[in-house]
Amino acid sequence: MPYVNIRITREGATAEQKAALIRGATQLLVDVLKKNPRTTVVVVDEVETDNWGIGGETVTARRKRGS
Amino acid sequence: MPYVNIRITREGATAEQKAALIRGATQLLVDVLKKNPRTTVVVVDEVETDNWGIGGETVTARRKRGS
Amino acid sequence: MPYVNIRITREGATAEQKAALIRGATQLLVDVLKKNPRTTVVVVDEVETDNWGIGGETVTARRKRGS
Amino acid sequence: MPYVNIRITREGATAEQKAALIRGATQLLVDVLKKNPRTTVVVVDEVETDNWGIGGETVTARRKRGS
Amino acid sequence: MPYVNIRITREGATAEQKAALIRGATQLLVDVLKKNPRTTVVVVDEVETDNWGIGGETVTARRKRGS
Amino acid sequence: MPYVNIRITREGATAEQKAALIRGATQLLVDVLKKNPRTTVVVVDEVETDNWGIGGETVTARRKRGS
Repeated sequence: MPYVNIRITREGATAEQKAALIRGATQLLVDVLKKNPRTTVVVVDEVETDNWGIGGETVTARRKRGS
Repeated sequence: MPYVNIRITREGATAEQKAALIRGATQLLVDVLKKNPRTTVVVVDEVETDNWGIGGETVTARRKRGS
Repeated sequence: MPYVNIRITREGATAEQKAALIRGATQLLVDVLKKNPRTTVVVVDEVETDNWGIGGETVTARRKRGS
Repeated sequence: MPYVNIRITREGATAEQKAALIRGATQLLVDVLKKNPRTTVVVVDEVETDNWGIGGETVTARRKRGS
Repeated sequence: MPYVNIRITREGATAEQKAALIRGATQLLVDVLKKNPRTTVVVVDEVETDNWGIGGETVTARRKRGS
Repeated sequence: MPYVNIRITREGATAEQKAALIRGATQLLVDVLKKNPRTTVVVVDEVETDNWGIGGETVTARRKRGS
């Protein structure tokens, strides 16, 4: 029954990688809390780098600076 | 003043259907809690089936299997 | 499979009212989009009036002013 | 370490405006709570006007009516 | 830089279990997407069983029925 | 009409500080995007330090180590 929301920047994650995140997050809830995987929901949000900020600047700006 | 976030897979919901979700969710808050509809916000997020998981697998994979 | 998050101020909603929100939101997704109710998740968040703002002020301040 | 999520309708915010939101929200947390800006995350979500409702109707419908 | 939000019912998860969720979710992002763990944020929300619904009823009601 | 969610650790923010966050975030949306403050909603979530992780560990653990 848990709900997991994973938010990452949109920088080319493949369908396989997103499936691995979903599989891994579901298994984590099984392992740690014995949650039922059948009703565990995982949603991956991919956010444009212009829309994600850390340290007060966008990821777009950071990538340009090489961080 | 309530805020309602409805997250569904992106599988062809029409503008009319999304308007019906917004109307219905707003009315629900009026009916149950007498909330003011004028400041009730409803946001519908449509999520790619590759990015939505249940039971540890993506909805894309489930649809392929016929579930 | 939808996920619905209803956020309201914590101002005395009863368990029965919260159950009505859950029932109503689930039914809304069935009616509008034929979603499977068995995997539809609804989470109600109740937020202190000091922590909820509209119009640039807290609900606590608005309630004191009689709005 | 704070996480700020700003949700707006997708109506032409520029990259510069989104950078200003990120800068401003990060600074707000520094000013009010002395939070460390280096680990403050700000995510801007832009939502289609068909998917955003207020007063029980979509922003698309409101814009057509001139509100 | 990812942000992960894990929402579970409040049913006695210990501090150790929550630490394990945080550690595991952070590691998952490292393993699958090589994300920097130092800026990965994980937030666990524990929600009262009266406030969590699935299948149109609250978890409180389900627990009473023995599900 | 924007919705802003500010999530911080629960470490003693006062009602005045939370009101300042609400006022400041609302003004930011006015200044940058000319949004209507009357329908701008800001919600502050305070999260226990056991439930907030960064760098793979809880804030509780970090505070004990003096970070």
